[in-house]
Amino acid sequence: MGTTQVDAVPEPKYWHLRTVLSDALDSEFAVGEILPNERELAARFGVARATLRQALEQLELEGRLQRRRGVGTTVAPPRFGIDVGSTGHGWPGAPGDDWQTDDCEEAAPPAVVAKMLGESDGVPVQVVRRTRMTHGQPVAAELLYVPFSSVPGLPAIESSGGAARGRAVLRELHRLDLAGQERTVELGSARADDARQLDRLPGAPVLVVSTRYLADGRTAAVTVSTYRADTCRLTFGDTGSDALLAG
Amino acid sequence: MGTTQVDAVPEPKYWHLRTVLSDALDSEFAVGEILPNERELAARFGVARATLRQALEQLELEGRLQRRRGVGTTVAPPRFGIDVGSTGHGWPGAPGDDWQTDDCEEAAPPAVVAKMLGESDGVPVQVVRRTRMTHGQPVAAELLYVPFSSVPGLPAIESSGGAARGRAVLRELHRLDLAGQERTVELGSARADDARQLDRLPGAPVLVVSTRYLADGRTAAVTVSTYRADTCRLTFGDTGSDALLAG
Repeated sequence: MGTTQVDAVPEPKYWHLRTVLSDALDSEFAVGEILPNERELAARFGVARATLRQALEQLELEGRLQRRRGVGTTVAPPRFGIDVGSTGHGWPGAPGDDWQTDDCEEAAPPAVVAKMLGESDGVPVQVVRRTRMTHGQPVAAELLYVPFSSVPGLPAIESSGGAARGRAVLRELHRLDLAGQERTVELGSARADDARQLDRLPGAPVLVVSTRYLADGRTAAVTVSTYRADTCRLTFGDTGSDALLAG
Repeated sequence: MGTTQVDAVPEPKYWHLRTVLSDALDSEFAVGEILPNERELAARFGVARATLRQALEQLELEGRLQRRRGVGTTVAPPRFGIDVGSTGHGWPGAPGDDWQTDDCEEAAPPAVVAKMLGESDGVPVQVVRRTRMTHGQPVAAELLYVPFSSVPGLPAIESSGGAARGRAVLRELHRLDLAGQERTVELGSARADDARQLDRLPGAPVLVVSTRYLADGRTAAVTVSTYRADTCRLTFGDTGSDALLAG
């Protein structure tokens, strides 16, 4: 990995070190390989531990490194490309989507979701919890918020909660005529329950995708999906461009 | 701000502190207000400086706090909602977009971009640098990569570089019939030049939006746009839902 000294460089030291480390990852390490420990790396590059840690954090943000408790720092595989746009052309839970329904409960949504739904603060809605699996790994945790007015046919007796109830909510939702959707993506940090679901520590960087589902001229449902920022690259296709490019 | 002690809590200390601080931000602080310094805050909540810093980092990731050199830590305003989807239905530089063209040069694109363009490694293309302004602030830095084959009519003499040349490249691109586009969003860290353009430190978390523009059955251009993750929420609209909801 060389022993380049990074003293006396005009750009921030951690940034220069990040570049040196990034090149070393390209040329000398394989995906999954464990890096030497922090003390060893700091000594080798002639930097303080704090500087080394900043550089490692950069590379983790960029998806180049993974840090796992009990394992250490490893070279990350390329991020998964996760389709967010075209799955989105249907209702959540449409046939063939790669989400599993975990649970359902009645609860008041967060204030920002209540506002999106046009509901008053504190009014309970159906909250369906789902997990998106890709290559056998959980890549996203989702809460789907459905006002009672969107699923008037929901049988009152169909189990009081759990996955079966969640699937019943989705089935009722599918009766509505989906007119469109709006989506936002922003950086967030994983809440404790999402972190558990995604096998991360609370506060890990995540990409939060919020979607409004529009039907009958109003917002019929809202999803807040928390994607692992370390392993996911979200893809949005405006067109059937695979076909286009294949043609 | 209270003096809640956060000892002996089962969840990680920094995470509990983050929640306590978040509540305090909601109830006791106004947007733009400067927080007490780290030593003072650590003493008040009875935590180590390292724990406090972790909690502040979480809140910065979530867009609740901003840390600026020479100013300190302030309460962040709500993130800007930046439309990425529908601006995208046209070519870059279409009338009315809020990007300014800064520069243009000939250079070999990064390997990953060369691959998207179907060009061989090391072959130079036109690289146009642009900045997106929102409310008078730079929110994104962009590099637009255009192979010579996409702009065969580009006058060879129209200035050797600079913004004028960049605008000429965009004009030529607009002659092509745009068939569609594909977009990916992922977490990244700001490279030194983008950081400067966005008034951030190198390595600041950013949302990297990569777009392929499809024309004549191939990728005619690629943009890599670096959005400030602290101030931006990217919005994607699949439909003219404003009209829908207003109706």
